[in-house]
Amino acid sequence: MFFPKGHYKESPGYTNLEYGLMAEWLGRSRVASEATNCAAPDTGNMEVLAKYGNEEQKAQWLKPLMDGEIRSAFLMTEPDVASSDATNIQLSMKKEGNEYVLNGSKWWSSGAGDPRCKIYIVMGKSDPNNKDPYKQQSVILVPANAKGITIHRMLNVYGYDDAPHGHGHLSFSNVRVPASNLVLGEGRGFEIIQGRLGPGRIHHAMRSIGAAERALEWMLMRINDPKKTPFKKQLREHGVILEWVAKSRLEIDSARLVVLNAAVKMDDLGPKATLREIAQAKVLVPQTALTVVDRAVQAFGGAGVSQDTPLANMWAQIRTLRLADGPDEVHLQQMGRNENKRGGEVTRKIQWQKEKTEQLLKQYNVKRFQPGSNIKPKL
Amino acid sequence: MFFPKGHYKESPGYTNLEYGLMAEWLGRSRVASEATNCAAPDTGNMEVLAKYGNEEQKAQWLKPLMDGEIRSAFLMTEPDVASSDATNIQLSMKKEGNEYVLNGSKWWSSGAGDPRCKIYIVMGKSDPNNKDPYKQQSVILVPANAKGITIHRMLNVYGYDDAPHGHGHLSFSNVRVPASNLVLGEGRGFEIIQGRLGPGRIHHAMRSIGAAERALEWMLMRINDPKKTPFKKQLREHGVILEWVAKSRLEIDSARLVVLNAAVKMDDLGPKATLREIAQAKVLVPQTALTVVDRAVQAFGGAGVSQDTPLANMWAQIRTLRLADGPDEVHLQQMGRNENKRGGEVTRKIQWQKEKTEQLLKQYNVKRFQPGSNIKPKL
Amino acid sequence: MFFPKGHYKESPGYTNLEYGLMAEWLGRSRVASEATNCAAPDTGNMEVLAKYGNEEQKAQWLKPLMDGEIRSAFLMTEPDVASSDATNIQLSMKKEGNEYVLNGSKWWSSGAGDPRCKIYIVMGKSDPNNKDPYKQQSVILVPANAKGITIHRMLNVYGYDDAPHGHGHLSFSNVRVPASNLVLGEGRGFEIIQGRLGPGRIHHAMRSIGAAERALEWMLMRINDPKKTPFKKQLREHGVILEWVAKSRLEIDSARLVVLNAAVKMDDLGPKATLREIAQAKVLVPQTALTVVDRAVQAFGGAGVSQDTPLANMWAQIRTLRLADGPDEVHLQQMGRNENKRGGEVTRKIQWQKEKTEQLLKQYNVKRFQPGSNIKPKL
Amino acid sequence: MFFPKGHYKESPGYTNLEYGLMAEWLGRSRVASEATNCAAPDTGNMEVLAKYGNEEQKAQWLKPLMDGEIRSAFLMTEPDVASSDATNIQLSMKKEGNEYVLNGSKWWSSGAGDPRCKIYIVMGKSDPNNKDPYKQQSVILVPANAKGITIHRMLNVYGYDDAPHGHGHLSFSNVRVPASNLVLGEGRGFEIIQGRLGPGRIHHAMRSIGAAERALEWMLMRINDPKKTPFKKQLREHGVILEWVAKSRLEIDSARLVVLNAAVKMDDLGPKATLREIAQAKVLVPQTALTVVDRAVQAFGGAGVSQDTPLANMWAQIRTLRLADGPDEVHLQQMGRNENKRGGEVTRKIQWQKEKTEQLLKQYNVKRFQPGSNIKPKL
Repeated sequence: MFFPKGHYKESPGYTNLEYGLMAEWLGRSRVASEATNCAAPDTGNMEVLAKYGNEEQKAQWLKPLMDGEIRSAFLMTEPDVASSDATNIQLSMKKEGNEYVLNGSKWWSSGAGDPRCKIYIVMGKSDPNNKDPYKQQSVILVPANAKGITIHRMLNVYGYDDAPHGHGHLSFSNVRVPASNLVLGEGRGFEIIQGRLGPGRIHHAMRSIGAAERALEWMLMRINDPKKTPFKKQLREHGVILEWVAKSRLEIDSARLVVLNAAVKMDDLGPKATLREIAQAKVLVPQTALTVVDRAVQAFGGAGVSQDTPLANMWAQIRTLRLADGPDEVHLQQMGRNENKRGGEVTRKIQWQKEKTEQLLKQYNVKRFQPGSNIKPKL
Repeated sequence: MFFPKGHYKESPGYTNLEYGLMAEWLGRSRVASEATNCAAPDTGNMEVLAKYGNEEQKAQWLKPLMDGEIRSAFLMTEPDVASSDATNIQLSMKKEGNEYVLNGSKWWSSGAGDPRCKIYIVMGKSDPNNKDPYKQQSVILVPANAKGITIHRMLNVYGYDDAPHGHGHLSFSNVRVPASNLVLGEGRGFEIIQGRLGPGRIHHAMRSIGAAERALEWMLMRINDPKKTPFKKQLREHGVILEWVAKSRLEIDSARLVVLNAAVKMDDLGPKATLREIAQAKVLVPQTALTVVDRAVQAFGGAGVSQDTPLANMWAQIRTLRLADGPDEVHLQQMGRNENKRGGEVTRKIQWQKEKTEQLLKQYNVKRFQPGSNIKPKL
Repeated sequence: MFFPKGHYKESPGYTNLEYGLMAEWLGRSRVASEATNCAAPDTGNMEVLAKYGNEEQKAQWLKPLMDGEIRSAFLMTEPDVASSDATNIQLSMKKEGNEYVLNGSKWWSSGAGDPRCKIYIVMGKSDPNNKDPYKQQSVILVPANAKGITIHRMLNVYGYDDAPHGHGHLSFSNVRVPASNLVLGEGRGFEIIQGRLGPGRIHHAMRSIGAAERALEWMLMRINDPKKTPFKKQLREHGVILEWVAKSRLEIDSARLVVLNAAVKMDDLGPKATLREIAQAKVLVPQTALTVVDRAVQAFGGAGVSQDTPLANMWAQIRTLRLADGPDEVHLQQMGRNENKRGGEVTRKIQWQKEKTEQLLKQYNVKRFQPGSNIKPKL
Repeated sequence: MFFPKGHYKESPGYTNLEYGLMAEWLGRSRVASEATNCAAPDTGNMEVLAKYGNEEQKAQWLKPLMDGEIRSAFLMTEPDVASSDATNIQLSMKKEGNEYVLNGSKWWSSGAGDPRCKIYIVMGKSDPNNKDPYKQQSVILVPANAKGITIHRMLNVYGYDDAPHGHGHLSFSNVRVPASNLVLGEGRGFEIIQGRLGPGRIHHAMRSIGAAERALEWMLMRINDPKKTPFKKQLREHGVILEWVAKSRLEIDSARLVVLNAAVKMDDLGPKATLREIAQAKVLVPQTALTVVDRAVQAFGGAGVSQDTPLANMWAQIRTLRLADGPDEVHLQQMGRNENKRGGEVTRKIQWQKEKTEQLLKQYNVKRFQPGSNIKPKL
């Protein structure tokens, strides 16, 4: 069982770095993650239960999840709002006596299509009038067979239905859940999803690195295929192909360093101190992997877009990572705002340096060299 | 009936420019091309029959195609060779008496899955020993129900099976066809496919322009959606969105001018004089359209990759245009080689200009101005 | 004399299209524009005088400018404000009796360094309290030798001082000019600069196209140089070079169509109806030309960045066009806002189409085809 | 004295990692490298002398160089050949008695313009007939005042003459040097330049990282400047600016990790085992830094291209790094070839996996899941 260090007593306790390196290998295959019970969204869900669930919740849901007996789904995204901003979430959770009553819609509920999926971890709005918009949400455990839940349809990802797993579009109509199913407490929804996302992003990123490596290997196979010789030369001898290979190697290596650096820092200083590095990995890796996979598709021609290679499916999977958990642009804006906080400090620094330089030039009576001045090189 | 000017007596005779402008409108819809009987591959196939078929062939196949009673497929690409170089085609056509016997495999036979598809236009190798590698191929008409043809499976395009149309993987095992089914004559296969591709590329390109316009409109709808307000602002007020809109507008307009310019030139001077412009449109337009569509996907989030918008399907369709009829890179190499033929001429011109300049400077005793020289602006 | 049609009686009266095509040839050379008296900023300045000047102003300044006896400068940009927004301009113009008194600073006053430069066309703030921020500015003619003007220094562009022409940093201290030197009238400064910029942008753009063509020719010369054979092959045989050539050809041709299209539209419908097309040319062309020139630099190696080719200087000149008359980003935002005005209309259109489609599907009892549905291609 | 570990007895012996981190700080300033005697080309030259020079050579040249008393130049590039392939070098070195006689031309001899420059390290062809093209070259020490050397002119880099340092164009006409000035021995030129380039590339790369950091700081200063408010908002509130900041931060961090990773690996395993990582840093870092610097230029407007910020000069300096020591494209081709050596191995691996998978599917009678198959998610 590959489980973040210290989160669960029966876990071997790998660090983010260690698991990250393993996730790269899992990412090379479409089935490896599930075969080792390390597939999303179950990993993140198990982590929520291990980290924030009480003993009863762990016994009831975490145990069978870790034994691979059941599957789970995480229900956060909603069709009618801009969920890239999680404060917009609308599914209502009203407390009535010992129960919460849930009403609303969710979509992109990945895994909800699997017949083995028994438990939904649901984010809803329990306190819409709370002044702090980050305290209005709670997370609650909802059995998949609860009365009032309808799976309307499965969503496609570029033509792939990802069956049997699937991405569900569900509605909740007066779904009643015992109040004891609440995770951590009312108003603590944000806290939970943030704890869930940090390590998950590293895992996703490393799996994408693995997929990109795999795509590069398929491309190498293709360009050395002795049967494929357009214009009497192997593909590897043609124009830009070797430059594609070199750039792919460079881009993958560079992106991997960014992720591993984030993993190491998270191991050392925790997720909060690593927000910048995690966000960088979140943005950089899918774009890099998409570029590499698309080059491989182009090298393969028709086989690249078809079911004869893993490339088209890889591309579609990774494309969604530029949207899941917030689109790239939201993260970039946030990263820009954070970096810009240095604005005042660097302004003062540069101005101090300018003044100091002028002062020293005067003090030592040095004339500043200007292009086009009369200080000429000897000829 | 939208048919290239002068190719068929019953056609209204639109020019490439006129039809190009109409094709843009067809490209905005998934069904418009088929509804008006202007869908690939039938258009190209009808053109082959109208341009190169004899009267008998026209009566038997062109008439019902133009009446929309039957559909057709064009069988060129093969799974076991690099078909971006058409001289690699291997399906063998052996003449035995009054018949040709066909053996080999074809794939990406688009439309072959449609029950209404009755006729295959097949490119094969009839004279493998001809010294001129562009004279070894012939094109022949093969009824879809001919004995010995097996459709093994349908190919997916990023998960889409494009049913009922479909992209077939077929094999020919001793398929016998009357020699009179040959189009134009033995060894003239290259001539036929080149005549087929020119106008078709303009149509494809303009349909892609239409699709890109459509994607931009969907994006405009999304960013003005009053229900989608991440972080309390509409999407159009966020960071880079308006720059995406402006760049999309600019890139579409620019690509359209390239295609229309090619159409006008083809109308004036014919396809051979327009090779450069057609190739430019072939390369530029799909890349442009993919960029615009992908921005729209990103603006939509989850809905963008799903069946709720036309965007994901558009993307997958257009992505194949970077591969169909030769990958971009093959065309770019060819375009580069052609442009480079000017190498000697421009070298002589530049050297003449350099010499002339030196001579004039001496003659009038003018000192060449050099950066950093003593000629200074007044202060 | 190359002068916009109908603006001046002695001009041969070329259209924007005609002059645009000539400007491309001028742009190939560093000296052609000046040699033919078609160099910025004089062209734009002459146009201001011809279009908006009174007879006296024309006699005094336009005549000698057109005869090439004197040079001129246009003083708009200021060092202390964000001049990309022209309402920020601060140089104060106070009317005292029959005179205006000017105080403030200007920079990037191109041509001000030339000893032959006799006249400055100056934009200042004459009515800072006008409620309409676009009516606060006026344009006035200032003799270069007016008392109170100091040229502090010349600005470099990537190390080039562009002497003797030069880009001046000037200050005005109680500079007194007769009120009759006002152009067109008080508060009409915006009107004048907008009339000045339209055609000028076309000319700049076409000159950049010419420079890009020139850079491509130099690159062709280099890659066919028989003495330059790294690794025993000529440069043209190496990896990506021919793709660079092909892309450069395509990008130049595409950008040229955008400019010529704007020129034709301006000739037909005037500058106001052509704002979109002019802005597109303004943004697209310099970026395209920079890409082409930078590829040529890279093909040349050291000679490319040095004075031995025109490439480095070309690059520096064209780089400033991404900033002059407003940075690309300001134009893109404006273009995005304009395009986005279609938002409401396209939303209504798409929604109408969706509803109509649903209605028709119901009416004819057609089941919408969904990927993954049971409608399968025949096998 | 910052000197590679163990190369010189008086050096403090920093590792590549340690010095790399310091070089980043040096790169932030135009003068810091020279002020600390860590400027190119002197560092590389001192390293050549320390590593390959004999005791006499060290005493005569290394000592005063390390004391900052004299400067040096490295003469490799030649104007008449494609020097990106060092086997093309033509300056002839003929042994006559106890002397070598040198004839030929060199350019881009950086530092040759400095009056303090006393020693040239010259690469020439001593054995043009050697069958091994990598054994034909030798390196020899030539006093700058040797008879027969002419400095013809200084080369510009985008308008900068980099005086007094300068980039010389020199010729050698029967220049006689004692044979004892030979470094390491005849035919060992390649060995020397390769030993010189490895660590130097790390230093160059880290200095560029420092420059990019500096450019980002200047950009932060600009976008928070309260006086620069186009359209009534500070620059940081405009459209794409914060995304530029975020991307710059991400790209710099990512590039730095690539360089530091190379430095660590070189410290551990030596330069030969680190060829891939050094080449990656060589290609990635200048392109990254140019992107960041160019964004800063664009944010600054006119000041960005002028002498009022360090940005334009930074850009010109770093632009040459994409050409110096071989253009990017040569390195990418080499990197592509090296990566492609895995082609056979990965082909065998993928084919083994495919066969193994088929075999297992058969053994356990599992039907492979295909998109569009009848395995449907529950609804």
